[in-house]
Amino acid sequence: MRVLVLGGDGYLGWPTALHLSDVGHEVAVLDNFVRRQYDHEMGVQSLVPIEPLQARLDVWHEVSGKRLPAFIGDLVDGEFVLETLRKFRPDAIVHFAEQRSAPYSMIDRKHAVYTQHNNVVGTLNLLFAIAETDPDIHLVKLGTMGEYGQPNIDIEEGYIEIEHKGRRDTLPFPKLPGSLYHCSKVHDSTNIHFACRTWGLRATDLNQGVVYGIETDETAGDERLITRFDYDELFGTVLNRFCLQAVIGHPLTVYGSGGQTRGFLNIRDTLQCVELAVANPAEAGEFRVFNQFTEQFSVLGLAELVKAAAEHLGYSVQIDHVDNPRVEKEEHYYNAIHTKLLDLGLKPTLLGEELVESMIHAIERYKGQVIESSIDPRTRWNPGEPVQL
Amino acid sequence: MRVLVLGGDGYLGWPTALHLSDVGHEVAVLDNFVRRQYDHEMGVQSLVPIEPLQARLDVWHEVSGKRLPAFIGDLVDGEFVLETLRKFRPDAIVHFAEQRSAPYSMIDRKHAVYTQHNNVVGTLNLLFAIAETDPDIHLVKLGTMGEYGQPNIDIEEGYIEIEHKGRRDTLPFPKLPGSLYHCSKVHDSTNIHFACRTWGLRATDLNQGVVYGIETDETAGDERLITRFDYDELFGTVLNRFCLQAVIGHPLTVYGSGGQTRGFLNIRDTLQCVELAVANPAEAGEFRVFNQFTEQFSVLGLAELVKAAAEHLGYSVQIDHVDNPRVEKEEHYYNAIHTKLLDLGLKPTLLGEELVESMIHAIERYKGQVIESSIDPRTRWNPGEPVQL
Repeated sequence: MRVLVLGGDGYLGWPTALHLSDVGHEVAVLDNFVRRQYDHEMGVQSLVPIEPLQARLDVWHEVSGKRLPAFIGDLVDGEFVLETLRKFRPDAIVHFAEQRSAPYSMIDRKHAVYTQHNNVVGTLNLLFAIAETDPDIHLVKLGTMGEYGQPNIDIEEGYIEIEHKGRRDTLPFPKLPGSLYHCSKVHDSTNIHFACRTWGLRATDLNQGVVYGIETDETAGDERLITRFDYDELFGTVLNRFCLQAVIGHPLTVYGSGGQTRGFLNIRDTLQCVELAVANPAEAGEFRVFNQFTEQFSVLGLAELVKAAAEHLGYSVQIDHVDNPRVEKEEHYYNAIHTKLLDLGLKPTLLGEELVESMIHAIERYKGQVIESSIDPRTRWNPGEPVQL
Repeated sequence: MRVLVLGGDGYLGWPTALHLSDVGHEVAVLDNFVRRQYDHEMGVQSLVPIEPLQARLDVWHEVSGKRLPAFIGDLVDGEFVLETLRKFRPDAIVHFAEQRSAPYSMIDRKHAVYTQHNNVVGTLNLLFAIAETDPDIHLVKLGTMGEYGQPNIDIEEGYIEIEHKGRRDTLPFPKLPGSLYHCSKVHDSTNIHFACRTWGLRATDLNQGVVYGIETDETAGDERLITRFDYDELFGTVLNRFCLQAVIGHPLTVYGSGGQTRGFLNIRDTLQCVELAVANPAEAGEFRVFNQFTEQFSVLGLAELVKAAAEHLGYSVQIDHVDNPRVEKEEHYYNAIHTKLLDLGLKPTLLGEELVESMIHAIERYKGQVIESSIDPRTRWNPGEPVQL
């Protein structure tokens, strides 16, 4: 299949592109390098040095014999999107090309507007380009479990059957997004669902949990193929950050009580899930939603797991409960259904001490690079409230 | 109370501003005149000639002794929004300032992107400006009944209590918007709800039905105060269009079977509802949703009502079922709850032949102005499909 990976220079886009290439698809990548620009803006960088896109595409060619074309441009430029689809003629498009940080969207008005404009308009341009060039293209879009929030009922996969006053319907699952970034993902879901209902497009929304991990089968072979690894307050996901904190002797920063429960998955499972979605397209007119995670953990539970694993390796680890910079429930019911990807054949890579230890070993190689001042939370959900550290 | 009316030059914004001024509020209006620009773009115009904003504000001063300040600018300009709020210091903001036509949003990619960018970013700027200047400002935002679509269960006012697998929660009512314009309103609701939950803002979302009518108490007294009246395929709402078609001897254009059922209300009731919402603010942190309409009709039912009323006045009226340019259900269950505004004291102005006759009389005065070619639907929900007339 011909697969175009949007955001193919990013943390997940890059290893996904290699993996899809590795399993036999004809892959192209598209990126505008804005993810690298956020680093410059914030004075942070990936823990592991990453090669420029063209250089690592050359390495992949060297390693695999496959040459992946790169389309450089911005999804917000509708003409560019249309031109790319006309040139590459994909069967499927995997869409990672959004601003993906909740705290980045909450910095201030400009970052919020940027996030919503970038994500919503980029995806809208894509929907029009698909409708115009080939409505059969399967859009595999990265959403987030954070669209649902923390309702007091089980979270189903995208839809819920409601019985109300003696009548029934199956309707989109109600959303309670927790940041203006998460809101942008809800907006995307609304727009994509509309395009499927109205234009007969086919789409899979992968409501992904929090991803952790560094290495994948394809990037493990050559250091020049490694993907970026973020640990800063804006782009570092919680487990990656805890592992790094353990290595550098920084207390693990649990926001508030740490009772916040979320779905998590290994980066290798992200690749597997996208592969499964691409191999099993949605029907024409179908807006299919998968909850893409493998296990639920509380933030404090993860901190304790990292502490235990790191202490086995001889580290001394402290857990700090810092003033929560977010406005969120710290104790809540959480049970999210996630069976559809398992039904398609997903084999979960479960989290345990061994896996944490392997992440710690990977981090140890780069610990000299850490910018420690970028870790503690400064971005607050309530504008004007200073952070108490 | 100090009330800022956004979109104060428009079909509903203008008479609402006068009405709120009339009942004793200190009112200011804000507009960027883009509604007048759409007319130039499309080669159409309001049936009734309307004065420039400054001229009609002068007339209102003459008539009422009250001078309404006008802030001229665009909500997409975040600094302008902030500056306006700092200058006027409103207690409430009534927000009509969005691109409000579903077909306009469906013309092509550029109009879709314009609509979503304009509506979503404008409202986002407003939320930040409120949070920054005075979180106590009550935002009264015009939403639309079209956010809900046509579910097979009763439509509640904004929220629904769901019992699921033995647990319960009250969650946002699921949305199935019917155009990219309607999607933009759903995005707004998601963002405003977030701002209320997270920043403690207070907002009322008025999910308005289809408005009909021309005159209000305040505009009836002086022809120079009259509000715009649209009948073209993009901005003309269905009952207004039918009345005009009857007057000029054009067949009433029912899209498809005409079984599409919606909530409707008289323009006078829009003013009453906004007045009630302003007088009874939402609580701090509350995102309150009212379904703002008074009666449900099918499109064919309305056509038959107009035909009967016009025939009493001596017109000969034909009803044509034209190929539906929209992708929508033509036969469906529809029952939307609308009790909250009644509970606050709304006295509905119900639709009947007499009211239709009075609209017909009003239209007769301007029938020489009609641009007949602008009436029939050309904008299709499915790009590329030509309209069969």
